[in-house]
Amino acid sequence: MRARGPAEPIARLIEEFAKLPGIGPKTASRLAYHLLRCSREDALALAQAIIEVKERVQLCSRCFNLTDVDPCPICADPSRDQRTICVVEDPLDVLALERTGAYHGVYHVLHGVISPVDGIGPERLRIRELVHRVQQEQPNEVILALNPNIEGDATAMYIARQLIPLGVTVTRPASGLPVGGDLEYADEITLGRALAGRRAL
Amino acid sequence: MRARGPAEPIARLIEEFAKLPGIGPKTASRLAYHLLRCSREDALALAQAIIEVKERVQLCSRCFNLTDVDPCPICADPSRDQRTICVVEDPLDVLALERTGAYHGVYHVLHGVISPVDGIGPERLRIRELVHRVQQEQPNEVILALNPNIEGDATAMYIARQLIPLGVTVTRPASGLPVGGDLEYADEITLGRALAGRRAL
Repeated sequence: MRARGPAEPIARLIEEFAKLPGIGPKTASRLAYHLLRCSREDALALAQAIIEVKERVQLCSRCFNLTDVDPCPICADPSRDQRTICVVEDPLDVLALERTGAYHGVYHVLHGVISPVDGIGPERLRIRELVHRVQQEQPNEVILALNPNIEGDATAMYIARQLIPLGVTVTRPASGLPVGGDLEYADEITLGRALAGRRAL
Repeated sequence: MRARGPAEPIARLIEEFAKLPGIGPKTASRLAYHLLRCSREDALALAQAIIEVKERVQLCSRCFNLTDVDPCPICADPSRDQRTICVVEDPLDVLALERTGAYHGVYHVLHGVISPVDGIGPERLRIRELVHRVQQEQPNEVILALNPNIEGDATAMYIARQLIPLGVTVTRPASGLPVGGDLEYADEITLGRALAGRRAL
């Protein structure tokens, strides 16, 4: 007699769930058995949503954000300031900026940052396309909204060096104390940047 | 100008992920964007695994465990003790018992426990099938391995009252201190049961 694991289709589903980021083997089992228990319609709705996302979502040919129409709704929106381009690392950063409701321009998604450790050079990102876009569209301003860390800073420097000679204003969002944050607990680099970037009231 | 959320297929996938137990909206977004980034093959492998699980997995007609063949491999295994039936709440409990390697009999999965609060009466569980099976198969022993809590205890009592008149030995796993546990930190009910169930060395 030998001990039996789950049936083969269940074992495969657990394995596939466990490949997702942040999903360990226990959570993967729980998710698989949840789908076994739930209605056929609910389970197939998830499968269908995964298939649809791979079939219908593409990159916008102008800003390289994820979209199901090309150009994307932001690039196609005449009420947005098409002459301000905000450069971000990732499509999730676009969502974060949109949630603020404070940005009215358009985007350019790099799909990563320069990271020699991970073997990601500038040619793997959408930097060439950005330079070409700036030459073509001649925007008023390019905001480099990359994460304030070593890779983000290096990527911003690399891009700025190519854009400034084209005569466009290149900016970065302010780095400083987070709202609701506590001066006492801020790390020294953040506090240093907050001081350096102090503004008159 | 209005702020834009994710493209419609992405929003739908996030929504479907967020329906899964223990997956909040942040994790759902992270999973959806992971699938957007990963290869088409990897994403479709997950979708396919979900579809297969709903198409190929059924209940064993004898023990009601989840299986892709009927009878399930455990019921069909001649090297297992077919005259000892372990009754469990859930297919995950079968996996837990199989992992111990200490159980050589067969199973009967109730798919729940009696819970008046949740409106689950005995007729919603596979209790009628269990009684019928015991009448037919005349096993030596039925082990009621239900969780040691109020619902599990009540369900075990309900089943025992129907099985004992049939002349079968009905048992429950020992309740007591977990191995590696600490007497000082055991709750009083567990400690009480451990004392009551003490064994001679």
